[in-house]
Amino acid sequence: MHRANTPPPVPRTRRTEGTRVRGRAERVVAAVLTATHEELGRVGYGALRVEDVAARSGVNKTTIYRRWPTKAELVAASLRAANEEQEQPDTGTLRGDLLVVVMRTVRTCKTPTGRGIVRMLQTERADPEVEALSRSLRDRRWQRNRALLERGITRGELPADVNPELLLDLILGGIYARLIHRGEDIREDYAAAAIDTVLAGARAGAARLPNEPQQ
Amino acid sequence: MHRANTPPPVPRTRRTEGTRVRGRAERVVAAVLTATHEELGRVGYGALRVEDVAARSGVNKTTIYRRWPTKAELVAASLRAANEEQEQPDTGTLRGDLLVVVMRTVRTCKTPTGRGIVRMLQTERADPEVEALSRSLRDRRWQRNRALLERGITRGELPADVNPELLLDLILGGIYARLIHRGEDIREDYAAAAIDTVLAGARAGAARLPNEPQQ
Repeated sequence: MHRANTPPPVPRTRRTEGTRVRGRAERVVAAVLTATHEELGRVGYGALRVEDVAARSGVNKTTIYRRWPTKAELVAASLRAANEEQEQPDTGTLRGDLLVVVMRTVRTCKTPTGRGIVRMLQTERADPEVEALSRSLRDRRWQRNRALLERGITRGELPADVNPELLLDLILGGIYARLIHRGEDIREDYAAAAIDTVLAGARAGAARLPNEPQQ
Repeated sequence: MHRANTPPPVPRTRRTEGTRVRGRAERVVAAVLTATHEELGRVGYGALRVEDVAARSGVNKTTIYRRWPTKAELVAASLRAANEEQEQPDTGTLRGDLLVVVMRTVRTCKTPTGRGIVRMLQTERADPEVEALSRSLRDRRWQRNRALLERGITRGELPADVNPELLLDLILGGIYARLIHRGEDIREDYAAAAIDTVLAGARAGAARLPNEPQQ
């Protein structure tokens, strides 16, 4: 980038100041969203109080309300941020990418915050705000995972006419059933065998669906 | 059973009376367990009152308490009875048997009582009594489904070294993810493609697991 025989760049004071100001605002946002995420894991959605987020993050309550006028918006932003923090895997194979996604979920569900949020999504699902949060989390995850599958299809790892929804339901549903409903641990060899079984079935041409809805 | 040229059976008064008495007791049990199941679907576990079961079944509260001294025992018996009411499928193929199990679950989850019980198992899972009910339901289902898989292996439909837990996690977990978490309907062709994908992967030898737990 910066060749040895060119002079070092002139310090650009104004730009640096601008960056520092933006950096502080970003740090405030990050502190609030992290605190929200932790509080959510600790007490759930219904019992979450913006006062406690303020205390935990050291950010004024009015500052928080100015940016996220409702609790639903604050929590949605914190879940979105936690999701976007995780880089999309790119191991070179679909199997490798899916294994990263699954084992990351396994690790997240073992943290106190992760476990608390999973519990909250189940026990408070009757609350329409929780249902909306849950739906938007699922939609975002679906978009990301679907992109991994499409890349695998492009690389020729799967037939082009597989049904991506069916494949993801099988792999992730199977893992969630064990991890979340039965509360059992998932070893990496188990996750790998689950992924291999579904991908082998898809390569054998079984994961297609007729296009016309049948009654 | 009763050939035309044999005389009609002599009425056996004592035996008939005995049968009638047993029949009535069984009818009382069935009425109470059905009423419990319906109340459970309607109000959940925490809010279920034996008084309401008594009113709904027309059976005296003290009669109910004499047979099932606690609410937990009453509810466990009603869930067991509902489960045992369903005959084990025997279509001749593992694919056919699994399809019966899955589509039966889909239909059950669409009834108001089935939907209510699924909701209760999620939203009240923090209650240790609900957790115990949930675990025993799962264990019973697991025994029954495992028997279907073993029969399929015996018939040579799957390699003998497949991991039955992995197969059932994939098929049923995938279905539950869609049906219960996302609240979406499952068409029979979708269920069939899910089963076919997992069975094809297992036939390709992917559903094995190393025996030694790896760390």
